[in-house]
Amino acid sequence: MIKKVLIANRGEIAVRIIRACREMGIQTVAVYSEADKEAVHTQLADEAICIGPAPSAESYLSMERIISATITSGADAIHPGFGFLSENSKFAFLCEQCHITFIGPSAEVIRKMGNKSQARNTMIEAGVPVIPGSKDPIYDVRSAAVAAREVGYPVIIKAALGGGGKGMRVANTPEEFESSFLTAQKEAKNAFGDDTMYIEHFIRHPRHIEFQILADSKGNIIHFGERDCSIQRNHQKMLEEAPSSAITPKLRKVMGETAVRAAKACGYTNAGTVEFLLENDERFYFMEMNTRIQVEHPVTEWVTGVDLIKEQIKIASGLPLSYKQKDIKIQGYAIECRVNAENPEKNFLPSPGTITGMFLPGGKGVRIDSAIYEGYTVPAYYDSMLAKIIVYADTREEAIVKMRSVLGEVVIDGIDTNVDYLYQILEHPDYCTGNVDIEFIEKMSEK
Amino acid sequence: MIKKVLIANRGEIAVRIIRACREMGIQTVAVYSEADKEAVHTQLADEAICIGPAPSAESYLSMERIISATITSGADAIHPGFGFLSENSKFAFLCEQCHITFIGPSAEVIRKMGNKSQARNTMIEAGVPVIPGSKDPIYDVRSAAVAAREVGYPVIIKAALGGGGKGMRVANTPEEFESSFLTAQKEAKNAFGDDTMYIEHFIRHPRHIEFQILADSKGNIIHFGERDCSIQRNHQKMLEEAPSSAITPKLRKVMGETAVRAAKACGYTNAGTVEFLLENDERFYFMEMNTRIQVEHPVTEWVTGVDLIKEQIKIASGLPLSYKQKDIKIQGYAIECRVNAENPEKNFLPSPGTITGMFLPGGKGVRIDSAIYEGYTVPAYYDSMLAKIIVYADTREEAIVKMRSVLGEVVIDGIDTNVDYLYQILEHPDYCTGNVDIEFIEKMSEK
Repeated sequence: MIKKVLIANRGEIAVRIIRACREMGIQTVAVYSEADKEAVHTQLADEAICIGPAPSAESYLSMERIISATITSGADAIHPGFGFLSENSKFAFLCEQCHITFIGPSAEVIRKMGNKSQARNTMIEAGVPVIPGSKDPIYDVRSAAVAAREVGYPVIIKAALGGGGKGMRVANTPEEFESSFLTAQKEAKNAFGDDTMYIEHFIRHPRHIEFQILADSKGNIIHFGERDCSIQRNHQKMLEEAPSSAITPKLRKVMGETAVRAAKACGYTNAGTVEFLLENDERFYFMEMNTRIQVEHPVTEWVTGVDLIKEQIKIASGLPLSYKQKDIKIQGYAIECRVNAENPEKNFLPSPGTITGMFLPGGKGVRIDSAIYEGYTVPAYYDSMLAKIIVYADTREEAIVKMRSVLGEVVIDGIDTNVDYLYQILEHPDYCTGNVDIEFIEKMSEK
Repeated sequence: MIKKVLIANRGEIAVRIIRACREMGIQTVAVYSEADKEAVHTQLADEAICIGPAPSAESYLSMERIISATITSGADAIHPGFGFLSENSKFAFLCEQCHITFIGPSAEVIRKMGNKSQARNTMIEAGVPVIPGSKDPIYDVRSAAVAAREVGYPVIIKAALGGGGKGMRVANTPEEFESSFLTAQKEAKNAFGDDTMYIEHFIRHPRHIEFQILADSKGNIIHFGERDCSIQRNHQKMLEEAPSSAITPKLRKVMGETAVRAAKACGYTNAGTVEFLLENDERFYFMEMNTRIQVEHPVTEWVTGVDLIKEQIKIASGLPLSYKQKDIKIQGYAIECRVNAENPEKNFLPSPGTITGMFLPGGKGVRIDSAIYEGYTVPAYYDSMLAKIIVYADTREEAIVKMRSVLGEVVIDGIDTNVDYLYQILEHPDYCTGNVDIEFIEKMSEK
C-alpha cells in the first residue's frame, strides 16, 4: 500500500487529494511555487516543499524539481491531479523509471490516448463509434462528393491545415455541396497556401456526455454513469451535472459499455473519462479519453457514493476494485458550478487579487471544494478557478433550485467572479427544461 | 400552502430554515435583536425586523413583539426553530388565536408533553415503557423496601423535594437497601426539612437514544430511525450520530414503533423526537418527548435523505407526509459535532468575541451548518454554538476518521472553541469502539 503521496498540483484539487490521503492514513507532501506560500494546500499537507518561482514552467511543470522533491521527501507515489503534468506521458514514464508510483494510467496508455489520431484508430478497431470522416486527403470536388456521401449529411468541409474557422463550411445537402466545397477550398488555398481538404460528418447541436470509468490492474473495468458537460464556453466547462437529462437507462447502459470497451481496448488502468458527442437521435461518437481525474468528478461521487480519489489510490496500490458494475446505482441528481475569478462582462478576463470578504454557504445537499479564504491573494499565474460548488437533490428541478439558492448566498469581495453569470444559466428556460447542447452559452450570450 | 414564514430564532437554525423556505419558493422574514444586526440570518432573509434589545427576554423571547412583527410583515406562519419559544405552549396558543400557522404541534400537545408527570402518565396508558418508580410518597423504610422490590434492583432513593444529589443513594441489592434508605432520608430531612422519599429503578450506564418522528394532520405517523446522543456534558449534547452502534435492526423496529405509539398517544402532529434511555440488555425507557426540531436533525437527514425542515413546512401547510414507513431506509453513517465558543480548560466558559480568522473545511461527505464569518462578533447573550459539522461515510469507522480530518482543518481565531476537545472524543478508544454511555464525558474528564 502507498504510504506517502506527493501531490504535484495546487488549488482545490490538491486539497481534495490531501483530504483523501489523510482519511486513508497516508502521509502527504505538498509542492508549492513561491506564489503559493500562503495557499491552502501548502498549509494543509503534512509537509510542503517549495519547488520554484511562480510561473508554472519553473514549478508545477518542472518534472525534475517534482521528482527530486518526491525522492527528498521519501514519498512513494505522486498524484498529478488534473492539468499541469497529469496527462504528460513523459512525466509518467519518468516516474516509472524512478520507481515512483504514478497515480494514473501507464505512460504508454497516456501517450496512446494523447495522440488523437492514434486514439481514433484504437477506437475504430475496438468498435467504438467515432465521428465518420474521409480517410484520405481530398484534392478535387468529385472525390469530395463521394466522401461526403460516405460520411453522411450534413457534413463539415475542413482545410487539412485549417484552424480558426478558415476554409471551413457546413453543407446540409448534396445540392449545396459543390459550391460550399469550392468556396472552402479557395479560402484554404488563400489562407494556408494549401488546398488539401478533409470531410467529416457534422454533428448538429450535440451534447457533451462523458463516462467516468475505473480500471484496476487485475483487468476489472467498470463505469459510473455519465456527466453532462454541455454548458461550456470555448471548450471550457462551466457547469456539469450527473445524471444527464438526455440519457435513458437503456442509453446509459449502451454508452457505459462502450466506454468500458474503449478503456479495455487501450489497456487502461486507474480513473479515466471517455468523452462522447451525443446527437439528438441518441447516436453518439467518441471524442477523446482523458487519462486523469476530472474537475467535475464530484457530481459522479455524489450520485454513486463512491470516493473516486480514494479508488485511484487503491488501484495504484495494486488493490482490486471495491465495486462490481452491478453495485453502481445512480441515485438523485448533482450539479457542479465552477466559481472563477473572472469578469464575464470583460470577456471573462481573469481577475486575480486579494479576497477582502467572503461567505461560502453550506447546509443540506451542499458540497464546497475550494482552496480560498478571506485575506487570500489569488495569484495571476494559474487557472482562475476559486471553488467548485456542488449541490445534490432528489430531482434535477430541486437541484437547480438549490444551486440558485446557494449561488445567491455566495459573497467573494475584492475580485470579480462569474457567480452572477452562473446564476443566469440556472435561470435560463432552456437550461431549466434540459434543452441544452454545447452551443448553449454561445446562444445565451447572443441575446 | 404557506407563503411567507417568520423565523422566530437566530444563528444556524434560522439560516437552515431560511434556506429550506427559499428552495420551496416561500418568502422569509427574519427577526433580530440589536446585537444581531450583522448576523447571517438577518442578512439572508428576504426581510428582517428588529424586535428589541440584545437580552433574549426583550427580543427572541418576547411573544408580543414576534407576533406583531409577523402581522406587520404579512407572514402567515412562524417557524420557532429550537430553544427560545419553540416549546412554549402559550406562544403556540397565541399563534392559533391570531390565525398564524405555528410550524410545530398544537399548543395542547406541547403543554401535555411539557408537563413531565402528565407525559409519563400518557406514556404508561399507551403502553410505552417508562422508568419504573414508586407511585405514592414514601415515609418509612418498610414500605420503601416493598417499593424497591417492585421497581427492581438496582434502585435509586431520592428525596421528593431533592436536587443537587442531596438525599440521594443508590442501592444495588436488598441487603444494602435499609442503610442506604435511612442515610438518604436523614440527609433529606437535614437538607430540605422534609423526609418524604421516592424510589426509582436505577439505569446503569444508559445510552441516550432518540427517535425522530413526523406526523401529518391526516393521522400518518412514521419514524426516521434513531440518533445516539450519549456524548453529553451536564445534559448538553456535544456529538450525535445516526444510526447508533448499539441498535440492531430488530431493536430499531421495536423502539421506532414505540416512538410512533408515543406520538399517536398524544395526538401529535409535525416533527418531534421521542427520547429514551437504553440499558445494556436492550431494555429501554421513555424519557421525554421534544416537540420541535432538534439541533442534531442533520444526522437523520443524511442517513435517510429526507429534508426534515421542508417536511415540517409541508405538514404545517396541511399536506400529507411524502413518505411511508417502508420508504425510509437508513444508509451509511453520519456524525455531528457542535462547535461552541467556549473554553474546555476553563470549565467550558463561554468565549464571545470577534472572529479574526477563519477556515471551515469542505469536500466529500462534509456538511456545515453555521452562521459565522470572518469579522463576525459572537454576542455574549445567546447560546455559544457557532457551527455544526456533520460528516457522512459508508461506515462508522470511516465517519470517525473523516470527522477527525475535518476538525483538524478548522481554524477559528479570536475566540476559544471546543474543537480540540471534540477531537479528543473522536480519538478516545471507547468512543471509537462504540463503548459509550451518558457518563462518557464525565469518565473522560476524570482521566
